[in-house]
Amino acid sequence: MRIAVEALTRTVTQIFVRAGLLPDQAAAIARTIVAGERDACKSHGIYRIAGCLRTVKAGKVDPMAAPVLTDDGSAILRVDANGGFSCAGFELGAPALAERARTLGMAALVINDCTHFSALWPEVEALTDLGVAGLAMCPSYASVAPAGGTAALLGTNPIAFGWPRPGADPYVFDFATSVAARGEIELHRRAGKVLPEGWAVDPDGQPTTDPEQALEGAMLPFGGHKGSAISTMIELLAGVMIGDMTSPEARADLGGMSLLPKHGELVIAFSPERFAAGRPGDPFARAEVLFDAILGQGARLPSQRRFAARAKALADGIALNDEERAELDRLHDLGLAAV
Amino acid sequence: MRIAVEALTRTVTQIFVRAGLLPDQAAAIARTIVAGERDACKSHGIYRIAGCLRTVKAGKVDPMAAPVLTDDGSAILRVDANGGFSCAGFELGAPALAERARTLGMAALVINDCTHFSALWPEVEALTDLGVAGLAMCPSYASVAPAGGTAALLGTNPIAFGWPRPGADPYVFDFATSVAARGEIELHRRAGKVLPEGWAVDPDGQPTTDPEQALEGAMLPFGGHKGSAISTMIELLAGVMIGDMTSPEARADLGGMSLLPKHGELVIAFSPERFAAGRPGDPFARAEVLFDAILGQGARLPSQRRFAARAKALADGIALNDEERAELDRLHDLGLAAV
Repeated sequence: MRIAVEALTRTVTQIFVRAGLLPDQAAAIARTIVAGERDACKSHGIYRIAGCLRTVKAGKVDPMAAPVLTDDGSAILRVDANGGFSCAGFELGAPALAERARTLGMAALVINDCTHFSALWPEVEALTDLGVAGLAMCPSYASVAPAGGTAALLGTNPIAFGWPRPGADPYVFDFATSVAARGEIELHRRAGKVLPEGWAVDPDGQPTTDPEQALEGAMLPFGGHKGSAISTMIELLAGVMIGDMTSPEARADLGGMSLLPKHGELVIAFSPERFAAGRPGDPFARAEVLFDAILGQGARLPSQRRFAARAKALADGIALNDEERAELDRLHDLGLAAV
Repeated sequence: MRIAVEALTRTVTQIFVRAGLLPDQAAAIARTIVAGERDACKSHGIYRIAGCLRTVKAGKVDPMAAPVLTDDGSAILRVDANGGFSCAGFELGAPALAERARTLGMAALVINDCTHFSALWPEVEALTDLGVAGLAMCPSYASVAPAGGTAALLGTNPIAFGWPRPGADPYVFDFATSVAARGEIELHRRAGKVLPEGWAVDPDGQPTTDPEQALEGAMLPFGGHKGSAISTMIELLAGVMIGDMTSPEARADLGGMSLLPKHGELVIAFSPERFAAGRPGDPFARAEVLFDAILGQGARLPSQRRFAARAKALADGIALNDEERAELDRLHDLGLAAV
């Protein structure tokens, strides 16, 4: 069966309200989760609801938290999520961030003390919708060994970037800095398949292709020492610098990896008009020349598949199977008792 | 033989002054080149002098250009290099950039209309010396195919990051977003060795391990589609957005790859104190905990080898062999006629 985006958003909002979240928090989370489902990003869709509820039930996130925005007029806008989920905090800060970027050319939004479970692309797309380019990053919890190392220290530390394309879907990428997602290793385990070389090390720090050993050991960063360096930069900028937890601290705070981690997030917005002012050429038109050249040689732009799924979902509704529908009903009826 | 850093800097400065560069330009270039030689980065050391002179001789860079800094009070500082080398422009802008980052929390330095030949680490280290974190990036010229593509479009597009460590060498990484440097492919060609898989495609866009075919075709980005996305972001932010040339434009402008390309550069500075203000913990102390954990499991920090070479060069002088010494004499005596 298919369900309209708005209808699914209402259902998911109700699930979170019934679980005790403030309506604004619940609606922001629902918009994020339904965006994942709409774009066929199943790993960030309704699958995430149970994990969010488990984290509420464990007392690791405050369902009644209201985010507060602080603005000292500088290039740094700060949202204190006060122990709640990140979504409402981001929605509170994003318009102010885009506005400050237009005023100063560039600005940063720091979100502190939040539980962050979403992909980063909804956030950079919110910025491209507001006409600015966006770069977002955050730690997660220690599950990746640095290149040359032997033990989990870095998080899967995602980084996302968005560039507005007037009249078209934006240029957006969003990826983990680990070579593979933890969920992919879990899928190999369930299927009884060995991992590709270079994905993980075992608990003794030795390379492994055994998914069980990998899950007990550590994942590896993408791109060897280069990806490892980017992941370390994310710990520094979006953990240490913003005065929030690094991935090893988040894992220690949570006491494991079965709930959603608490940490901060850094989102930077750039005004292309301000940066290009006084220089020849329109930056948006010039970007299209680059995109055309990428597509013209048969390569893809990141997120193309996601935008295609979105177009279909907006036209025809979101496809849910019987199992997914039953799970939604169960979460709706039982609330925190269901997880 | 060994030569002191100051003595080599004087010699290299004289070479550029004799070749017709303004003294300020010549000295800034010499400091950059000698920093490479000092740190045992031979590919950015005195080896670069001849390429710089060839580019002057070809009329592709203005030896008499004086950079101009424009400051509108926003988070964007702009240096117009006026067709000269980037080094003097960066030195002009860096102190103002660090100061603006301390005032606003974050700021950007845009360098336009410059010939850029240096590594980026001297620039992010100049910022860490001023107490701020730095992120630098620039296009180069089209020599890398996007992931899934078949032809040179992106540049080797380097990205560098620096974090200040009071009392210690900074945390610094600086790498090309291609899987290998063009020079490494050239070295394989000279040695008659095949390339590792995944480095390059031939002129028909097919994977190749033949260095000749690779040099005529295109290199590939590091880390597959993830590195390709980062490289594309660099084209957008440090090319299109700042109103300067992208890598395909730079290659077309230069008409080839034997001279140094003209394009712009984007350098972003962050004030850790400003970002961490009001939050628990000192960001510099907390960063050390992360570095200790990386080193404690046997992994390295990027640039460790470079800092070790630097310490030796500062103590004992820079080692030059007879051939290098003769080349310096030749460039000094003949100037542009030597290239």
